[in-house]
Amino acid sequence: MSNTNKLKIFNDPIYGFITIPNPFIYDLIQHQYFQRLRRISQMGLSYLVYPGANHTRFHHALGCLHIMQKAVNVLRFKNVQISEQEENALYVAILLHDIGHGPFSHAMEHSIVEDVHHEEISLLFMNKLNKEFDGQLSLAIQIFKGEYHRKFMLQLISSQLDMDRMDYLKRDSFYSGVEEGKINSDRLIQMMNVVDDVLVIEEKGIYSVEKFLMARRLMYWQVYLHKTSLVAEEILTRILKRAKELYQKGFDVDCSKPLHFFIENKITFDQFNDEILDEFAKLDDTDIIGAIKNWQYHEDFTLSTLSKMIINRDLLKIKMSNEKFTSEEIQNLLDQFSKESKLTALESKYFVFKGKIKNQAYSKIAEPIRILQKDGGLEDVAILSDQLSLNTLSKHVTKYYLCYPKQLNKS
Amino acid sequence: MSNTNKLKIFNDPIYGFITIPNPFIYDLIQHQYFQRLRRISQMGLSYLVYPGANHTRFHHALGCLHIMQKAVNVLRFKNVQISEQEENALYVAILLHDIGHGPFSHAMEHSIVEDVHHEEISLLFMNKLNKEFDGQLSLAIQIFKGEYHRKFMLQLISSQLDMDRMDYLKRDSFYSGVEEGKINSDRLIQMMNVVDDVLVIEEKGIYSVEKFLMARRLMYWQVYLHKTSLVAEEILTRILKRAKELYQKGFDVDCSKPLHFFIENKITFDQFNDEILDEFAKLDDTDIIGAIKNWQYHEDFTLSTLSKMIINRDLLKIKMSNEKFTSEEIQNLLDQFSKESKLTALESKYFVFKGKIKNQAYSKIAEPIRILQKDGGLEDVAILSDQLSLNTLSKHVTKYYLCYPKQLNKS
Amino acid sequence: MSNTNKLKIFNDPIYGFITIPNPFIYDLIQHQYFQRLRRISQMGLSYLVYPGANHTRFHHALGCLHIMQKAVNVLRFKNVQISEQEENALYVAILLHDIGHGPFSHAMEHSIVEDVHHEEISLLFMNKLNKEFDGQLSLAIQIFKGEYHRKFMLQLISSQLDMDRMDYLKRDSFYSGVEEGKINSDRLIQMMNVVDDVLVIEEKGIYSVEKFLMARRLMYWQVYLHKTSLVAEEILTRILKRAKELYQKGFDVDCSKPLHFFIENKITFDQFNDEILDEFAKLDDTDIIGAIKNWQYHEDFTLSTLSKMIINRDLLKIKMSNEKFTSEEIQNLLDQFSKESKLTALESKYFVFKGKIKNQAYSKIAEPIRILQKDGGLEDVAILSDQLSLNTLSKHVTKYYLCYPKQLNKS
Amino acid sequence: MSNTNKLKIFNDPIYGFITIPNPFIYDLIQHQYFQRLRRISQMGLSYLVYPGANHTRFHHALGCLHIMQKAVNVLRFKNVQISEQEENALYVAILLHDIGHGPFSHAMEHSIVEDVHHEEISLLFMNKLNKEFDGQLSLAIQIFKGEYHRKFMLQLISSQLDMDRMDYLKRDSFYSGVEEGKINSDRLIQMMNVVDDVLVIEEKGIYSVEKFLMARRLMYWQVYLHKTSLVAEEILTRILKRAKELYQKGFDVDCSKPLHFFIENKITFDQFNDEILDEFAKLDDTDIIGAIKNWQYHEDFTLSTLSKMIINRDLLKIKMSNEKFTSEEIQNLLDQFSKESKLTALESKYFVFKGKIKNQAYSKIAEPIRILQKDGGLEDVAILSDQLSLNTLSKHVTKYYLCYPKQLNKS
Repeated sequence: MSNTNKLKIFNDPIYGFITIPNPFIYDLIQHQYFQRLRRISQMGLSYLVYPGANHTRFHHALGCLHIMQKAVNVLRFKNVQISEQEENALYVAILLHDIGHGPFSHAMEHSIVEDVHHEEISLLFMNKLNKEFDGQLSLAIQIFKGEYHRKFMLQLISSQLDMDRMDYLKRDSFYSGVEEGKINSDRLIQMMNVVDDVLVIEEKGIYSVEKFLMARRLMYWQVYLHKTSLVAEEILTRILKRAKELYQKGFDVDCSKPLHFFIENKITFDQFNDEILDEFAKLDDTDIIGAIKNWQYHEDFTLSTLSKMIINRDLLKIKMSNEKFTSEEIQNLLDQFSKESKLTALESKYFVFKGKIKNQAYSKIAEPIRILQKDGGLEDVAILSDQLSLNTLSKHVTKYYLCYPKQLNKS
Repeated sequence: MSNTNKLKIFNDPIYGFITIPNPFIYDLIQHQYFQRLRRISQMGLSYLVYPGANHTRFHHALGCLHIMQKAVNVLRFKNVQISEQEENALYVAILLHDIGHGPFSHAMEHSIVEDVHHEEISLLFMNKLNKEFDGQLSLAIQIFKGEYHRKFMLQLISSQLDMDRMDYLKRDSFYSGVEEGKINSDRLIQMMNVVDDVLVIEEKGIYSVEKFLMARRLMYWQVYLHKTSLVAEEILTRILKRAKELYQKGFDVDCSKPLHFFIENKITFDQFNDEILDEFAKLDDTDIIGAIKNWQYHEDFTLSTLSKMIINRDLLKIKMSNEKFTSEEIQNLLDQFSKESKLTALESKYFVFKGKIKNQAYSKIAEPIRILQKDGGLEDVAILSDQLSLNTLSKHVTKYYLCYPKQLNKS
Repeated sequence: MSNTNKLKIFNDPIYGFITIPNPFIYDLIQHQYFQRLRRISQMGLSYLVYPGANHTRFHHALGCLHIMQKAVNVLRFKNVQISEQEENALYVAILLHDIGHGPFSHAMEHSIVEDVHHEEISLLFMNKLNKEFDGQLSLAIQIFKGEYHRKFMLQLISSQLDMDRMDYLKRDSFYSGVEEGKINSDRLIQMMNVVDDVLVIEEKGIYSVEKFLMARRLMYWQVYLHKTSLVAEEILTRILKRAKELYQKGFDVDCSKPLHFFIENKITFDQFNDEILDEFAKLDDTDIIGAIKNWQYHEDFTLSTLSKMIINRDLLKIKMSNEKFTSEEIQNLLDQFSKESKLTALESKYFVFKGKIKNQAYSKIAEPIRILQKDGGLEDVAILSDQLSLNTLSKHVTKYYLCYPKQLNKS
Repeated sequence: MSNTNKLKIFNDPIYGFITIPNPFIYDLIQHQYFQRLRRISQMGLSYLVYPGANHTRFHHALGCLHIMQKAVNVLRFKNVQISEQEENALYVAILLHDIGHGPFSHAMEHSIVEDVHHEEISLLFMNKLNKEFDGQLSLAIQIFKGEYHRKFMLQLISSQLDMDRMDYLKRDSFYSGVEEGKINSDRLIQMMNVVDDVLVIEEKGIYSVEKFLMARRLMYWQVYLHKTSLVAEEILTRILKRAKELYQKGFDVDCSKPLHFFIENKITFDQFNDEILDEFAKLDDTDIIGAIKNWQYHEDFTLSTLSKMIINRDLLKIKMSNEKFTSEEIQNLLDQFSKESKLTALESKYFVFKGKIKNQAYSKIAEPIRILQKDGGLEDVAILSDQLSLNTLSKHVTKYYLCYPKQLNKS
């Protein structure tokens, strides 16, 4: 294909059009490691609550690429020097920042690839691609690892107000139809600037930053940590754990080859060589959902029952509370359930369990979002805002939940 | 669950909220036959062109339910009598009108369930559900089959301006980001009325009808029949055919049990008993995509090569034309390819083939869209419009295409 | 006109369609008191900052009518009894709640109708219309005055979360293009309920309430109190004051008859009889802007200079600060200016002046927004929210400003 | 003000932000000739039908400037050479293309400035500004007059697919809430190219062009020529004519000075010297509406009655037809009316009259919209489209109307 044909345009319901800035970026997008993101849902099982939330990590990555182009334009307009090479590295880094995600990452990371995080795998993929593309990703990798001397470039990719967060908030609220999460990325980007190698927001953008922080927090409670998504994800985690357990006990757990590989083997991050990475690269939502569909008919009651719950969206009940649930409450439910179901105590714990979620709208430990004041001074948004209080914002809000079969009575 | 809890609301990025009108509708939605639509994409492989087009048949069916509620309100406001029982039947019928769709229906219907159409299967599902729900779907089925005496009710469900088309045009253009397809369903519904048991559009809605017809036509050419979707679908069809062929030759074709069932057996519509229907109900996009992922590593060159094309979005080349391609052109490409690939002539035809697509914006054979004029008369929109000409509109536009591997030269 | 013709529909870019629920409402809309709102801008001089902000009080009132209809539907669906008569009264009251607004109310109330507030005039209009329409507005007036025994009805019309605020936030942010102000009125209304005659929001709507409060606050700082709008309004107030002053000194101040009436006479609220009300009803934006256009050529330097500032959008400079400006700063500018312009000290104060603005996102004195918890209890949103702190929210934020001619140096 | 401060941003609900590209453009926008467009409504009296349609010619001109910037970027990306000087000239020309519009141009041009068209006045303004700005508009004027050698530049400003039409269709449909008129300007601009100095649309944009033509036609019939707007405009024209007539008969017609100037004097285009242009530049909507408000109380029955019709939106009745109305029909109504009203025959014609409107979706005489085919050939869209027929599209559709007082019977 000639290079001209690589100047492709994607339709995007959010931004209108997304333009591929150069042939190298096009080649990365065409790579099977990246194409695989077309089959990985951005919001995991959230479509069980928000039926529109079927967008993919592929689309999110393109969206990030788009707003990074806008950011580069705005910064250059404000006389921030960005060389062509740096520009390209920013595009590569933001495009690939999430490439290490597997299907339903959160559930996976809590069941079968326990000590492995997607950021680390993203880096493995980048390094592998760097070899294939003769070092063309080197600068992007440097930025991504925080090793490049111009620190604001990393902030564009990973900080409390980066292109990633902007796109996912905008995209997730768009597809889920939760209007409260909409943010004005256009305005935020227009207000960006760089001072002393630090990414800042100009003062008249302060309300947009507040709005952004509130929208993010709202999306956490209303969408990402929605109780139905939560219980679905907990069930999914337990399905994968149970499958692994059954395999270890000698049962057959029919599923796709790449998924079977990870059920068979306990892979630690240190073992993640190129072969394992290639196996990992074969995994997508299809493997997980396909397996669960099979397992509906598995001989093990626990595995089959949990699997049916996901497929038929007939989930466990979930109670949420600001207080911890007591051991008695849980034991009582466990007793009821094992009596009724004749399951062992251990198996019953697949159906009756508790958990907690935490969220924090803004971290005061992480690098702050800095506002450029009219007099040229920089200040943390949480200090400048007359509405947000740093303490309230950075408070870790914790909620507790308890899951159990519908037929049980929680008195 | 108490009935009050069944008065659920779904978020929808298009309509805001979709309300479930009564507990019976809720129970239908909860049924596994319907839940399965969550895993069937509305637009098949179009996401390979429009990365936002990942919405499901589940969501489309809910959307239809929503606008049917609006239509019922508007008609009642205009003194069209609709009993509660009829209202409910309209909701059931529109909700289930597409329940017979399998995954990638078009490709399936051209490969492994050859003589079976989704409308017929929808009816089978409805009948089965009617048994389960003690006859509560009887009136809906009567309407759906065109056997109810009030004919306009069928027109709301299936006609040239029904709730189905309104929702899918709106939804498909929304998710694909193709703004040209957006229609004003609100206005069309506001302009609906019933005269002599015929669904009509009041005269001042005529421009909205024209717009609707043009939008539909545009969506066909720009989206549904987009050349890349077309070639992807052709490849998918050939993958399924090849798998069936290989099975018949004694090869192993590893895939999910329900898909294997349909590869093993040639099922005609007459054989579609309850058992087969239940097997069919287990199929969704996961089975197809999961199989294709496996088949990338199949020993058969044809199957594995075609499978990789879909998974890595590295498709055959496609040329479109208003004229038929000549036998020489095709033979020339076939010769080139079999020489180069060492495949048999028969196998080569999996990689070099032609086809055609037809579309018609408006049928003059089907029941017309009728405009209610100010003097009370009814007239076909194609006659009243000063812009649309019935002949142009109802013309069958045919386009021809030719698919072949990228490396070949089409001189 | 027959009553059927009065079942009119208005296009609205925000809600799609606004339906007039009954012929009486139609007659009110057709009344010249209401038609006059077509010529009164909702956001005063804000179009000087936001060029899209040209929407009118007429459109806002229709918007309120629309969402009141939604609210009535939702509440009835939740079994809140609302009689037809009450329903109609709610429509009348919300439609007319702002009918007492004159053109550029804020500037008017600070210059020529000093002790008269638009709420009081709204009531005068309602009483007058009640006579014309034979008592058909009586119940609406009772509700509006807080004299009806069902208190929640007043809350729908006037409270910290009423239909008025919902529509104006949505509409003002829409037309000004300030996305941060967008609120999800659909969701807020869906979450409404009535408990013990109190309007409440169900618990799962709490994030939407937080969002609403933040959006309102943001709109205040970013739009309603935008420094350029502020200085424009201050200039407008001074133009009107100066005209009155000049008239009293015997100068001719050419303007429309109704405006001249209010410049000639000092009208207190007690004098507002039917004749004066009719005169007031003749005023709209045209009278004010038309006068200012004339006054650009007035012999008085002060009047003509200020008038040109508005017409040519060539305003005074404005500095904002969190601290009060000192007397010295102001005196220094006054001295510079009177020296340069040869104006008297008194006249100079038309060009150099200070002011302050206050805003409060949520009042803890006014009736709170109450959340209906899952256990049935009611609680103030400011107490329940883990993010908003009642003290921060209800803080009166004050900002100070200083206006002066551009050519001066503020050292 | 420093040049940096002139790099201003306007909020636009349609495009998000509109950036002022350079300080010279900023100065033009600040000029009082341009600021005056803030007080001239883009859609005249259409707000009487579409209450949201209060946007101004000021905003439209900024919108055109915005999409011209997009067009320049796209063309340069496709290697069309555009110098900085040409770029700036394109911005100036599109910004000022409509600056010659007076208030309610159409009614004005049919009553008091009879032989003067706004395009010609735009040129007068540009020439005057060119003097003030020392020749900086020369190239823009050359392009605007069609005298520049690169013809495609004029096509960007004035052709069947220019920036003007794109913005007004988009903006008028947005503000009026008529969704059917929405066009995809983003896509149209993305598909633009220049071949042999001709502006073309690339083939895959053909459906967007069809959509654009259909949307334009729809907006004509549904909005611009809406029967209520039509009758309102006819009444406005007659008010101005009547005022002129009364003035000539020696009556006093109280109105603003600039409007009085044009009522007193019959100005032909040849007389339009700088003084008259400056007088014209003082006119805006305020003058017209202000006068009509006064004239409600004029002693002349005809003038006062027509004036009240506009102010209270209580218009004449209008009948539309595809056929001409007969002389008898009209005479009959005239007789009825003069008998009932005791007006002279001449005066009665102010209340009973007929007219006609014509529209053509696409002109085959004007320069065609050219499609760039894949083989490099250019062809008229009307020939390439399989749906549009050149003859149908270019047909002059004529509709006839008859206006008369509501109380009359048209048998």
